[in-house]
Amino acid sequence: MNRYVFDFADGSRDMADLLGGKGANLAEMTRLGLPVPAGFTITTEACRAFLATQELPEGLVEEIDDHLRRVEQAMGRRFGDPTNPLLLSVRSGARFSMPGMMETVLNIGLTDVTVGALAAATGDDRFAWDSYRRLIQMYGRTVRSVPSDVFEAALTEAKRAAGVGLDTELGVGDLRALVARYRQIYAQHTGEEFPQDPHVQLIESVRAVFASWNTTRARVYRRQEGIPEDLGTAVNVMAMVFGNLGPDSGTGVAFTRDPATGERGCYGDYLSNAQGEDVVAGIRNAVPLQRLRDIDPASFDALMTYMSTLERHYRDMCDIEFTIERGTLWMLQTRIGKRTPAAAFVIAASLLDEGLIDADEALARVTPEQLAQLMFPRFDLSAAPAPIATGVAASPGAATGAVVLDSRRAVETPGPVVLVRRETSPDDLPGMIAAAGILTSHGGKTSHAAVVARGMGKTCVCGADAIDIDEKSRTFSVNGVVVAEGDVISIDGSTGHVYLGRLPIAQSPVVEALQSGVSTSDNPVVTAVLRLLAHADAVRRLGVRANADTPADAARARSLGAAGIGLCRTEHMFLGDRRQLVERMILAATDEKREAALAELLPLQRADFEEILAAMDGRPVTIRLLDPPLHEFLPSLAELTGTVARREALGEDPGPEAALLEAVRHMHEENPMLGLRGVRLGLAVPGLYAMQVRAIAEATLARIRAGGDPRPEIMVPLVADAKEMEAARAEIEEVLAGFDLPPIPIGSMIETPRAALTAGAVARFAEFFSFGTNDLTQMTWGFSRDDVEGTFLPGYLQRGILPGSPFESIDRDGVGTLVTTAVQQGRASRPTLGLGVCGEHGGDPASISFFHEAGLDYVSCSPLRIPIARLAAGRAALGARLATSADSR
Amino acid sequence: MNRYVFDFADGSRDMADLLGGKGANLAEMTRLGLPVPAGFTITTEACRAFLATQELPEGLVEEIDDHLRRVEQAMGRRFGDPTNPLLLSVRSGARFSMPGMMETVLNIGLTDVTVGALAAATGDDRFAWDSYRRLIQMYGRTVRSVPSDVFEAALTEAKRAAGVGLDTELGVGDLRALVARYRQIYAQHTGEEFPQDPHVQLIESVRAVFASWNTTRARVYRRQEGIPEDLGTAVNVMAMVFGNLGPDSGTGVAFTRDPATGERGCYGDYLSNAQGEDVVAGIRNAVPLQRLRDIDPASFDALMTYMSTLERHYRDMCDIEFTIERGTLWMLQTRIGKRTPAAAFVIAASLLDEGLIDADEALARVTPEQLAQLMFPRFDLSAAPAPIATGVAASPGAATGAVVLDSRRAVETPGPVVLVRRETSPDDLPGMIAAAGILTSHGGKTSHAAVVARGMGKTCVCGADAIDIDEKSRTFSVNGVVVAEGDVISIDGSTGHVYLGRLPIAQSPVVEALQSGVSTSDNPVVTAVLRLLAHADAVRRLGVRANADTPADAARARSLGAAGIGLCRTEHMFLGDRRQLVERMILAATDEKREAALAELLPLQRADFEEILAAMDGRPVTIRLLDPPLHEFLPSLAELTGTVARREALGEDPGPEAALLEAVRHMHEENPMLGLRGVRLGLAVPGLYAMQVRAIAEATLARIRAGGDPRPEIMVPLVADAKEMEAARAEIEEVLAGFDLPPIPIGSMIETPRAALTAGAVARFAEFFSFGTNDLTQMTWGFSRDDVEGTFLPGYLQRGILPGSPFESIDRDGVGTLVTTAVQQGRASRPTLGLGVCGEHGGDPASISFFHEAGLDYVSCSPLRIPIARLAAGRAALGARLATSADSR
Repeated sequence: MNRYVFDFADGSRDMADLLGGKGANLAEMTRLGLPVPAGFTITTEACRAFLATQELPEGLVEEIDDHLRRVEQAMGRRFGDPTNPLLLSVRSGARFSMPGMMETVLNIGLTDVTVGALAAATGDDRFAWDSYRRLIQMYGRTVRSVPSDVFEAALTEAKRAAGVGLDTELGVGDLRALVARYRQIYAQHTGEEFPQDPHVQLIESVRAVFASWNTTRARVYRRQEGIPEDLGTAVNVMAMVFGNLGPDSGTGVAFTRDPATGERGCYGDYLSNAQGEDVVAGIRNAVPLQRLRDIDPASFDALMTYMSTLERHYRDMCDIEFTIERGTLWMLQTRIGKRTPAAAFVIAASLLDEGLIDADEALARVTPEQLAQLMFPRFDLSAAPAPIATGVAASPGAATGAVVLDSRRAVETPGPVVLVRRETSPDDLPGMIAAAGILTSHGGKTSHAAVVARGMGKTCVCGADAIDIDEKSRTFSVNGVVVAEGDVISIDGSTGHVYLGRLPIAQSPVVEALQSGVSTSDNPVVTAVLRLLAHADAVRRLGVRANADTPADAARARSLGAAGIGLCRTEHMFLGDRRQLVERMILAATDEKREAALAELLPLQRADFEEILAAMDGRPVTIRLLDPPLHEFLPSLAELTGTVARREALGEDPGPEAALLEAVRHMHEENPMLGLRGVRLGLAVPGLYAMQVRAIAEATLARIRAGGDPRPEIMVPLVADAKEMEAARAEIEEVLAGFDLPPIPIGSMIETPRAALTAGAVARFAEFFSFGTNDLTQMTWGFSRDDVEGTFLPGYLQRGILPGSPFESIDRDGVGTLVTTAVQQGRASRPTLGLGVCGEHGGDPASISFFHEAGLDYVSCSPLRIPIARLAAGRAALGARLATSADSR
Repeated sequence: MNRYVFDFADGSRDMADLLGGKGANLAEMTRLGLPVPAGFTITTEACRAFLATQELPEGLVEEIDDHLRRVEQAMGRRFGDPTNPLLLSVRSGARFSMPGMMETVLNIGLTDVTVGALAAATGDDRFAWDSYRRLIQMYGRTVRSVPSDVFEAALTEAKRAAGVGLDTELGVGDLRALVARYRQIYAQHTGEEFPQDPHVQLIESVRAVFASWNTTRARVYRRQEGIPEDLGTAVNVMAMVFGNLGPDSGTGVAFTRDPATGERGCYGDYLSNAQGEDVVAGIRNAVPLQRLRDIDPASFDALMTYMSTLERHYRDMCDIEFTIERGTLWMLQTRIGKRTPAAAFVIAASLLDEGLIDADEALARVTPEQLAQLMFPRFDLSAAPAPIATGVAASPGAATGAVVLDSRRAVETPGPVVLVRRETSPDDLPGMIAAAGILTSHGGKTSHAAVVARGMGKTCVCGADAIDIDEKSRTFSVNGVVVAEGDVISIDGSTGHVYLGRLPIAQSPVVEALQSGVSTSDNPVVTAVLRLLAHADAVRRLGVRANADTPADAARARSLGAAGIGLCRTEHMFLGDRRQLVERMILAATDEKREAALAELLPLQRADFEEILAAMDGRPVTIRLLDPPLHEFLPSLAELTGTVARREALGEDPGPEAALLEAVRHMHEENPMLGLRGVRLGLAVPGLYAMQVRAIAEATLARIRAGGDPRPEIMVPLVADAKEMEAARAEIEEVLAGFDLPPIPIGSMIETPRAALTAGAVARFAEFFSFGTNDLTQMTWGFSRDDVEGTFLPGYLQRGILPGSPFESIDRDGVGTLVTTAVQQGRASRPTLGLGVCGEHGGDPASISFFHEAGLDYVSCSPLRIPIARLAAGRAALGARLATSADSR
């Protein structure tokens, strides 16, 4: 038979799977000799058995009774004893913290009989009847689903009848009457009397906690947080101690370090003459924990000692709940404390300094997501007003602008705007593109607005439900404030706060320090980040390069630690002033005209490359030959059709647009993403790739002559078959043969499923592969990113059909299989093959972990993601055990 | 040391890899005791050794000398003998027939000395000097690359000087002078005298034949025909016999059956007093072979005996070359004879009747491509004029219509047109779509016109280079005929013939017989086809279903042998009269309006399904739920933009098109193929799939009540993740639960790479898979069929970057890997999983062979391809050995 119950003295913190987080930590404190009230934990296994059958597993009740006797012995009181009764608390405690999701019942053991004994034992009638009242309400709600507001209404009525304002002003008589009224309510709603058998109270409470695992709220929370459905919760049964037995009693919460900044010291709140739930409910004002030094110096000193013990034992910042019952300190709970991103870095570096943890563990204690939070520009809140509303922090960043209430105005209004909508739909896409930020009053992290904004990297606050939009008056009201279209607001996508007016935006000190290349700082957060990043650099195997198309981006990437450029797109170099030239090249009616246009483009491209190679001197620069379909450089078909139709209708000369329209019509593609682009274009348009390669070669030569150390690599996009790569390589080599240059590596993008499936053959003509996981994801799923993120993908996320967007974090099952296939085939065919990734997944921590496992050489990402990728690559190198240890903090 | 040379008496027909086709067959005839001139074969291995080093392999010359002595013994003459010299021919002979590609040198052994001996031995001075002249010309051209036209000019000059018109009128003196002139030419071009050592002539000729493997012509031919580059050619050295030694000599070709019809009898041509090359060159008129009975009865009888021996030995129709030298019959070559598609069927059935081959072998002797040729409608040629031109038969079928010379006229001209262009480009696509057929004067089977036409299934003749188009006069001239735009022509895509005027088109008798369900016929071709198809049906494991969306198609498919419908698309049911209703459904602003529109569509869909289920009563009908993006049912964005812009410019009311334009703009997708379609649409548009499933269920119920046996299956398109299938299945089952029906299988299309890569998970919610290889090919390659077939794909085929369009025949390396992965995963997850394919590859024989190997249950194809698929599936079941035996016929 399984053992379903563990005394606190029998467990340990390693048993969290079985005892839940809270139970394991209670056991650990008990083992450390800290004063924990006696108690025991009923295992998650018992819960799973219950959930499978809706019956308590055989033998559980007997086991509980056995352990209950040990608690009675330890506390010197008996459960249900008519003279000196033991009272119990029953609390849920799952493997992962699920705040507010599970149920708690306090004061179990009080009956019409024992309530008098409690009064006698404590010498406090009022306390005893108030405790009984609370039991009936909590038990009624938790075990028998009696609505709380019915009890609350009775309490309000009692206060009204007594002519008092606060619960605490009710006298013993009032409370006795209220208990009678509560028992009436209980009987009316359940058809039964409130149980007078303490054992029934206990067992039914345990059952209720088990059952609470499957409430809708709990399910939704687990889905959001990615907690498995089949874990179940443990139940902790503990002897009650009371912080509300007079001025020498009280309750508090404490942190071993400041959870906001990570600084050492004494942080927490203390509330005299109160129970824990009063603190949580914020009914009365707590005082800073330091004040306890004056109120109860002995308890304070003991608490400081225990906190120090815990931090040294757990080797991390802990948070603690404690109660003082008539001068005796009891430890009720501890756990690794939640903290802000800044605190996470400061604490990890500090523990490393103190020798409590080593550098690997310090690195494992901080997440790339935390670093990302520290790198976003923030509002300077030093002189900020209070937020007018708070919503879901859906896409980080800081945005400020004029309020617009629809997509059309967003597009038409000059200057930065914040689009404010009840919720967004595909129709709002143009407005979302035009806006600096997006604010909605409905929807959560998977709403249309949230998914699309994250896809665009745009600041977004969702579901700020205090906001009420009035389309007619073109205003919205929020907590009594009316904001009109055109008024300026500021939204913080990292906190979810909404402010009235324009808040100044401050650059992140972390980014400033990284870019300026300092190694120390007055700012402890910056110092901690630099230190842990340095360790990540020391342990990581993955290189980190940048996606950069301009000298400015290249320089910024370099300052942020890029080992080179993994993707230099050349299409941006075809825009701007050069558009006319590119148009001439595209529309050229003869080979001569096209060659003339290409010849004019050549020196411009050469200058581009020369500057980028200079900015990345001594480090590799992977240049991708032109990828997009040529018609992307021309005006849209619909636009031109409208222009020409309008002129023709008016009998005007349709102008040069008529010829352009003809050309665009010929070049129109149904699905340009799958059309004439990439290497297909390169092989189809004579001279195009040759011009680009010549520009690279000439730029390289110029850099060498100037004493530089240029390291270009040439990358061919959209290969689907080895023969394409063979043909492109031949063309490239033919041009390079005309120059006396060190060898320039030639490689292939792997971004079609077929290139991955036939990678062994492709590798015969490629010295390196670079996975283009954006296109690879699009083709593997059959999802056009532009078309799905704004249409059905949010619905898929909401319905749980997909766990997340495959464009944000790599799809291991599908796209990942293609990546590993290509790595295996490619390396088998060419053992020296270089392997990198240049899709946006290269900056996503979960994906970086996958790329590390897949054996790639480097990732490449946008310049600002480079520190994040460095940290993620370092953590990936630590292996699975360490690298996940920070994720629950 | 390798053995490089085999005497004819030492080889056999099984040794074709080593001896080449010609050499193996000469050996076989020798072994059969037929009168073959003595000779030997130098192996392909020797050729490969030569090609690797450009040197004859060690020992080869000695081996040749050894075998030469055996030839001298057998023929009783010595090579280079000044009194009775042996002469030799040297001919290439590769594993696969490469007509006209390789080189031949005759009369080797003639020198200034032996020419006199030959004259004496034959008593024919003129013959001897003419033979010497021919040797110098052939040797000069083949071995030393002396241009032929220089020799031809000298011959013409000699005839002019002699005042004669024909070669045969030149006297001995003329020929002696011509030989002297030829030797001058040879010396001028090579800087050396024509070799007077017969051994040098022999060895250099062998070397030249080896080297000819790598001529450009040979390479191009091999690429076109898919012959491997590394086979090399064998060389056959044979004692010369002469058909030009007087009226008792001659040469001929013969077939053991009529290669046009397959009928038994005596077929061939005979040319008195001539050498084989004279027949090929068509210099003089040959007589029908029957005439040999009168000219030389003994030789004729012997030939008939030998032909019968060969046919019984080879168990197939053979073609033969023979020479009679002064009354002695010599067999110079035999091989399995080429034949028309009709003859292939008749011969195979006839050999089966005669007991020479069994039914499996008879089936292996005919190809699905041959059957396809027999099924195309043909011109009724009974009263047809002679063709005015012949080009490449690029895409089969028969088309007739008015000539148009550009794409615009093709679109604008009412009635059927034939688009005539020098060559086509992507700009011609609208015209190609509008035309009944396409005719070009340039380009071959991989030209733009050919690839696009085959993709469209449109008749096309390419590269009819006699056609000369004059844009100015809007005419083309061909062999003296001038054809004006608007004149009617007819083109035959199966023969490449072009006719003036409208030819009547006749339905294929094979199709007529199949559709009428007869089992015998007066037409021997029809009888043979029915017989071999019946055997294919008996042996095949793959089922054959039809892609059919209408009752008429379903009925036709059934008559052609469909076991059911593998793909019933429902989108066609949303067109025509129903467009307005569908438009309302799409544009519905509220749930109510959409539901009302869906409710009106329901009875229409139900009627569709009822009729199709009736037409396929008792057989499965796989209905695919709606797949295309909804905006496909609305007008195009550019079109509407033009309409509205025109009206607005004129100050007119833009009409209902303005609202429509707004909707189309909102629904516009960059890449609709990868957008909101398939199951994504089904899950996104409430009620759509439910309506379709309800219509299927109601139709099924109605058919059961009418006493029918309806067998619908429901197929969900474009699944990329198992969860989509789970959700769609739940919706479908919810609707079906409202009906009391036998179980309706629910399956998934496998048409995204990800569905294939995660097929094990998808199979948990799918009772069957149907591979949609069109989309799977598009996504795996990143090729949008619409966009690539008209743009870069023809160039890829011409440059040999791709061996063929992956949309015509399945890409085994890429798409095929995904198919086999999905089959393995799917069957592992659900052993009873049904597996079919419904992409167009389901009708392609090479692809069907792959699907058989991959273990699918059925293929599905367009109704007219069903007999072809049945034959292909039967051949696939015979296994690799038999199934390829017909492909070289």
